[in-house]
Amino acid sequence: MKPFICSDFLLENDTGKTLYHDHAAKMPIIDYHCHVSPKDIALDVNLENITNAWLGGDHYKWRMMRACGVDEKYITGDSSDKDKFLKFAESLPKAIGNPLYHWTHLELKRYFDCDLILSPENAEKIRKICNERLSQPDMTVRGIIKKSGVTHIGTTDDPIDTLEWHKMMQDDPTWDVNVFPTYRPDKAINIEKPGFAEYLRALSEASSININSFDDMCSALYNRMDFFALHGCNISDHGADYIPWSDDPENIARAVFKKALEGYVPDNRETDAYKTAILLRLAEGYAERGWVMQIHYGVARSVNSIMFNKLGPDTGFDCISTRDSSAALVRLLDEVNRTHALPKTILYSLNPNDDALLACASGAFQDSRAPGWVQHGSAWWFNDTKEGMAAQIKNLASMGVLGNFIGMLTDSRSFLSYTRHEYFRRILCNIIGVWVENGEYPADMEFLGKMVEDISYNNVERYLGL
Amino acid sequence: MKPFICSDFLLENDTGKTLYHDHAAKMPIIDYHCHVSPKDIALDVNLENITNAWLGGDHYKWRMMRACGVDEKYITGDSSDKDKFLKFAESLPKAIGNPLYHWTHLELKRYFDCDLILSPENAEKIRKICNERLSQPDMTVRGIIKKSGVTHIGTTDDPIDTLEWHKMMQDDPTWDVNVFPTYRPDKAINIEKPGFAEYLRALSEASSININSFDDMCSALYNRMDFFALHGCNISDHGADYIPWSDDPENIARAVFKKALEGYVPDNRETDAYKTAILLRLAEGYAERGWVMQIHYGVARSVNSIMFNKLGPDTGFDCISTRDSSAALVRLLDEVNRTHALPKTILYSLNPNDDALLACASGAFQDSRAPGWVQHGSAWWFNDTKEGMAAQIKNLASMGVLGNFIGMLTDSRSFLSYTRHEYFRRILCNIIGVWVENGEYPADMEFLGKMVEDISYNNVERYLGL
Amino acid sequence: MKPFICSDFLLENDTGKTLYHDHAAKMPIIDYHCHVSPKDIALDVNLENITNAWLGGDHYKWRMMRACGVDEKYITGDSSDKDKFLKFAESLPKAIGNPLYHWTHLELKRYFDCDLILSPENAEKIRKICNERLSQPDMTVRGIIKKSGVTHIGTTDDPIDTLEWHKMMQDDPTWDVNVFPTYRPDKAINIEKPGFAEYLRALSEASSININSFDDMCSALYNRMDFFALHGCNISDHGADYIPWSDDPENIARAVFKKALEGYVPDNRETDAYKTAILLRLAEGYAERGWVMQIHYGVARSVNSIMFNKLGPDTGFDCISTRDSSAALVRLLDEVNRTHALPKTILYSLNPNDDALLACASGAFQDSRAPGWVQHGSAWWFNDTKEGMAAQIKNLASMGVLGNFIGMLTDSRSFLSYTRHEYFRRILCNIIGVWVENGEYPADMEFLGKMVEDISYNNVERYLGL
Repeated sequence: MKPFICSDFLLENDTGKTLYHDHAAKMPIIDYHCHVSPKDIALDVNLENITNAWLGGDHYKWRMMRACGVDEKYITGDSSDKDKFLKFAESLPKAIGNPLYHWTHLELKRYFDCDLILSPENAEKIRKICNERLSQPDMTVRGIIKKSGVTHIGTTDDPIDTLEWHKMMQDDPTWDVNVFPTYRPDKAINIEKPGFAEYLRALSEASSININSFDDMCSALYNRMDFFALHGCNISDHGADYIPWSDDPENIARAVFKKALEGYVPDNRETDAYKTAILLRLAEGYAERGWVMQIHYGVARSVNSIMFNKLGPDTGFDCISTRDSSAALVRLLDEVNRTHALPKTILYSLNPNDDALLACASGAFQDSRAPGWVQHGSAWWFNDTKEGMAAQIKNLASMGVLGNFIGMLTDSRSFLSYTRHEYFRRILCNIIGVWVENGEYPADMEFLGKMVEDISYNNVERYLGL
Repeated sequence: MKPFICSDFLLENDTGKTLYHDHAAKMPIIDYHCHVSPKDIALDVNLENITNAWLGGDHYKWRMMRACGVDEKYITGDSSDKDKFLKFAESLPKAIGNPLYHWTHLELKRYFDCDLILSPENAEKIRKICNERLSQPDMTVRGIIKKSGVTHIGTTDDPIDTLEWHKMMQDDPTWDVNVFPTYRPDKAINIEKPGFAEYLRALSEASSININSFDDMCSALYNRMDFFALHGCNISDHGADYIPWSDDPENIARAVFKKALEGYVPDNRETDAYKTAILLRLAEGYAERGWVMQIHYGVARSVNSIMFNKLGPDTGFDCISTRDSSAALVRLLDEVNRTHALPKTILYSLNPNDDALLACASGAFQDSRAPGWVQHGSAWWFNDTKEGMAAQIKNLASMGVLGNFIGMLTDSRSFLSYTRHEYFRRILCNIIGVWVENGEYPADMEFLGKMVEDISYNNVERYLGL
Repeated sequence: MKPFICSDFLLENDTGKTLYHDHAAKMPIIDYHCHVSPKDIALDVNLENITNAWLGGDHYKWRMMRACGVDEKYITGDSSDKDKFLKFAESLPKAIGNPLYHWTHLELKRYFDCDLILSPENAEKIRKICNERLSQPDMTVRGIIKKSGVTHIGTTDDPIDTLEWHKMMQDDPTWDVNVFPTYRPDKAINIEKPGFAEYLRALSEASSININSFDDMCSALYNRMDFFALHGCNISDHGADYIPWSDDPENIARAVFKKALEGYVPDNRETDAYKTAILLRLAEGYAERGWVMQIHYGVARSVNSIMFNKLGPDTGFDCISTRDSSAALVRLLDEVNRTHALPKTILYSLNPNDDALLACASGAFQDSRAPGWVQHGSAWWFNDTKEGMAAQIKNLASMGVLGNFIGMLTDSRSFLSYTRHEYFRRILCNIIGVWVENGEYPADMEFLGKMVEDISYNNVERYLGL
């Protein structure tokens, strides 16, 4: 029996072990998509304590605790740090097979030199070990990032953001990690949601462009793209419940935009037309600037309205949507491609049943400007599990070309999540190791070592032109 | 090579074997959802003979025989018991990898002390062994139930049912197995199907409430809930082709109900509104009474109309529906929750692609009143296979909390099906054993043994308040 | 470690090895569905060179190269054979886990006695070996077919085809492989696509039936069925993006057909009605003639319009459609069955999420006229991978009866693809071998050997009445 999370964790055979230890493990990390706070890095804050670090904003853990019947006061409420941590420690052991169980113990080992197993019995002991460690000067946010071997971080930012913290870091000669912004204009896209008109006023102010029409808004968004580019941005992101499509989007979009400025809430047909139109314009802007476009879809957000009203968005009440987006997806990609040449694009769906679709859709829009022009992104959110990552990797290998994959990202709000790259790399090396030792691929360790290094780091470095 | 169905059947390593033999195997059974006849238990009938026991009403076996080209006269027709059994024995060996193959031989071993392999050659020998055994006095329905270690059985019952057989058992001091009814009001929900008006007349009679309006019907249904509660019921079930949703259900429901009383067949929009409205009212009733709500959906029933006209429903001509229900599902759960606090709920889809959806939807509506308030139910019907159960368990573990799972049910019409609990427990213990021996979970056998016992029995006992 | 593609490739244990080597490997091949040119076989052409053989028309390889950023001039452009081959050799090693990697090396071994691994370094060496071998007289198309153990080939043909090459082969006493046509009337079905009216004129000419109405067209199609039957055809095929359905198809179909003759492009409702109506009529024709009906659906074809305009269809720009067809599928099957008795039917979806649906839908329409009357066809196109084939086999086994499966087909345009039957048979034997050695099926090698031989060859021979 293998010990729990030993050095050969998730590695079944010697080929996989060699690929991981001699190649994947030594590569630095480009965490090109996450939700950490650039301000926290700029100010090099420390994480206060382990309750705050682990439970302060991590809705994956909140969901897990709620599924165990823990009262909300121990989750997002006003209980003490000690009590919250204890409730987490009581719940976690039941989450066998959940990546939270692995992530938690990987983080204990890698950041806290702690090999204990979290349980109610030793919760207090672990809490003290972690809190003491977190109080040490090398465990600030920057210390953790450097210790993790991170060379680049892509944060997620609204077009109206001042990017002041990014600028501060770029001006700081003592800080050599490239923390670049990602342009995520969801609020300009979600015309049907409350706050759209207010958002346009803020966008107008940020861009110094009066927004009275759809075209004005596009100009303002392009203006902000250029501003983002000045701060090192060359990647965008879009969070969509589903992929919209309309055959004649701009005419409808122009008309409904005017009405939305005055508070009109569009119907589904108008919403889809508007969203199609603006996505086409945004994609045009990305293509012109040589940016990467990320699309995340397949989500039903904040489905529990009582809890949404109490806690707001991103608090653990989201769900997969299995609504079919396949026709809209290929029409949207084709229309962008037909009119402006498709920018580099990364596709993610929260619906794991879309794995095959995304691998195939990618394959139909590749471009000789670079290998892997369109990517099926790494297993996302609820799918970011051992099973989910293995499924995405095997599917991509079967239906696409694994060697061009740009690999892992944390999508996390936590500075302790970089071990998820280790988790991914172990799974990747194991899959390849199994293929090799089963005689399904030649044991060309030089080539395979290089491939593993590429998927771990070099491919995304090249892809993003870093 | 492992012998066929040996004591370590489905168990790959020592940890799994220990978990199964020392923990899971010794737990009794709560078969909280099935379709056995309460009358047969009340009267303690015997099963006549093995042809009747196995082939009398088991449409899983009928489908398998039809796929082998067996003429209907040997399936539901008037052939002799011997000939039918022989046709079954001729077909079964081709069904390699089908759970029927395992179920059949587990039943031979566990109930008939027979280690023979069913084939045309020994069909007659096996038939004789089984028939002789079935003629013995300990092999009545009650004898089999007791022998199987069953402590509780949840039958499936219409709201108009008199529950006389349940009452007879409850009044019988010699019978200590709790056979409780499940409230399944499908006929009151299926307003678009023939017989709706007639059903309402029967419901009116059963409840002594005149039904002239939607509200009258709800009163009648509540009245029957109280009657069911008197007989130990605290669980309901709903069989839906898909999850309905309507933004304004009650107004439409009231109007269409009036018309349906006079034979009007509603269109899709009216049907969805009516079904949404009544499900909300029913859920309110369950919430008030502290009941569990089960929802089974994703089915296209009786799709072969020629055979439906010959044999009626539940005869082996059903199919999976892959129609998307995700948006409706989360809106329905949210609306119940928002208006009346969601009752404990168990979600099942016949579409295996919904596994991830159901694990996630559950996670968004948990409640601190009990662990695992909303459950992703065990792999259902066509998915009740080794592959399907493993997929559901791994998915639930990855996206939810396996330790809170209420586990297996047979959903069966046969008294010989309790070995399916053994089948499930072996698969469960094996998955956990593999995780442990791969170093993915600590080898804390005390904790794991308890978890396996909980998933096998204690969790559902607590969940149903038994 | 197992050597790369050794004699026990994909075979994990002794039972699987015995089943493959002693049973599956020795069976000949019926490639009942492919896209090779009957003219090439009739004229017994040779393949010129390996670049032409591998890259001349294989859009699987084209996609793989495009995903690696290869310029189109090296794919479908005017580069030299040598350069194209080199670009392929540079790309392929990245496609670890892709069946192309296995297919390529199986073909090198089986047809070229070449155990080298394709890479940029030895590309030229391999090219020479292959080209020399291809210049030898036994390596004509007929030579390859005979060498591969192929006894029957089902080509794919338009109803207006003269079948002259099939006739030539049937009249050739020196050629004993049965090359039969498959009737694929897609162009008569796709009323919404350009060229429909022109196609009807060609159909009119081929059948000598004036086509002025929907009924005329059906007569012409029946006339061509009879012509195809004269040339050994008893199987049809249909490529559909999705399964159409209309409740009242014929009236709409008649009306829209008249308009379409004059160039009218029907809307979605009309298109679905027309397609439903003609599929029902075609199925009636197949049923009357005792033919097999194949339905392939779940595709979004030629989604990249720029490349479609450059290269036309079937050039590597297709995608999976995940549009739900479940309701339409069961209604269509039921309507055919209800009105004319369902012909033998084989169902394939490009959406791998439909595996469970197709196994279940098949199970609801079986017929005692033959075992496995309705078949869930082998993993298709993008799913024709090691993972995809294993998933289809396990799903079919779990939800249907594996022993009745008619097995593999290449669906290929290449005469070097017959090794895909070897690939499938190894996967099949391995799955069964694992079940047996895990104690999930008795080690009855005589029965299992027979089953493997049946799935490899005998079942489809019987199914097609060959």
